[in-house]
Amino acid sequence: MKKQVTAAMIVIGDEILSGRTKDLNIGHLADIMTAIGIDLKEVRIVADDEPAIVAAVNALRSAYTYVFTTGGIGPTHDDITADAISRAFGVECRYDERAYAMLEAFYAKRDIEFTEARKRMARMPLGAEHIENPVSLAPGFRIENVHVMAGVPAIFQAMLDKVVPTLTTGAKLLSESVHCPHGEGVIGDLLAAIQKEHPDTIIGSYPKYRDGSFWTELVVRTRDPQRLAAVKQAIELMVAGLEGSRGM
Amino acid sequence: MKKQVTAAMIVIGDEILSGRTKDLNIGHLADIMTAIGIDLKEVRIVADDEPAIVAAVNALRSAYTYVFTTGGIGPTHDDITADAISRAFGVECRYDERAYAMLEAFYAKRDIEFTEARKRMARMPLGAEHIENPVSLAPGFRIENVHVMAGVPAIFQAMLDKVVPTLTTGAKLLSESVHCPHGEGVIGDLLAAIQKEHPDTIIGSYPKYRDGSFWTELVVRTRDPQRLAAVKQAIELMVAGLEGSRGM
Repeated sequence: MKKQVTAAMIVIGDEILSGRTKDLNIGHLADIMTAIGIDLKEVRIVADDEPAIVAAVNALRSAYTYVFTTGGIGPTHDDITADAISRAFGVECRYDERAYAMLEAFYAKRDIEFTEARKRMARMPLGAEHIENPVSLAPGFRIENVHVMAGVPAIFQAMLDKVVPTLTTGAKLLSESVHCPHGEGVIGDLLAAIQKEHPDTIIGSYPKYRDGSFWTELVVRTRDPQRLAAVKQAIELMVAGLEGSRGM
Repeated sequence: MKKQVTAAMIVIGDEILSGRTKDLNIGHLADIMTAIGIDLKEVRIVADDEPAIVAAVNALRSAYTYVFTTGGIGPTHDDITADAISRAFGVECRYDERAYAMLEAFYAKRDIEFTEARKRMARMPLGAEHIENPVSLAPGFRIENVHVMAGVPAIFQAMLDKVVPTLTTGAKLLSESVHCPHGEGVIGDLLAAIQKEHPDTIIGSYPKYRDGSFWTELVVRTRDPQRLAAVKQAIELMVAGLEGSRGM
């Protein structure tokens, strides 16, 4: 059986913390990780602040198989991710020769000046490998288990598509969902008993509220298809037995 | 002048990390904090796992003025937030007398059994104060600077509305936004020079990408209205001077 593979994400950007931009990348990464059998265990959103980025990178890269970052790799003064990642790994942040040549040729061909700002996009930690950017050329990079990608969702998604085939994936966590027309108060005791009987299976209960009444989405998660079917059936029987119950 | 007031948020829930549920609470909290002059500095999303919750709570409650949590305070076995917060503070998690009586009366009036699961919603750390829940009665709670609220967005928002008037708010961070029809590569050097001239003002550059071309939203942030106007004008002049520029 495949072993568990874990991941964490760091979203870098004042604009998310101020509410000005609503993050779309967390949900996308979560969906992709679940689909390929990697457990996303933690996400941190930090400011455009070098000590904050360094602390998050160093806390997470030692704790999880992979770390993915988004944001802060563009050409402006507030794009400090390459410097912060270099600091976290204790290596020099310098112009990557291949990235520099790629960007230089790109702008030359279009007769656009290759300014100091544009050159910033070729900076990465010594020893980093490129993550290809099929949207706007300027690459992301990987250093050890940390993958550094753009914050603009279209570019982040395209970069992640390039990264996914390079990842070691785990045994896929299977899940089944059971709709329960009752609130959590109705099912709590019965569901806790089912969970106790099946300690190797994760049973999640997600309360939903709409138009003044509660219902619940019950989700069974396990890597074993037989256990999945057995626990799903136990929950379905529980829900069927509650017909006519009231409360929340 | 008012001093800076800071906040952090902890989103608790496997369902966010698996991608099954897309978080709506981070953006809402970010908007509210910005509106009342509190700087949201960090967000962590953690699993339904006691050690993970305890570690996040203890790291953040000592670093920021306020901590806000969402999720894990319902009646099911996977609702472990009250226990985890109690553990983080090293205090007993027990039935809160007033919450217990409120819930008991609520269910009795409706002739609904007050089950062990429903009783769980009255559990909170010793010394905690209620956060009123106008939607579905079961209260959140505050212990010291940590505010523990529901994950269901309608309930979270209602609880947060009750909390906001109790907070010490800071000097409001003012912001102005300038639309720039050019990509970051065009403006990077000029913008860096403006930032250098105005070190007390935060200038953010947010790249946008649509239909194959880039534009940029430039945001000036400061607590001083005169500086705000001056830096905004400098940026507007910069953008006007770039008419006809090309590139990304």
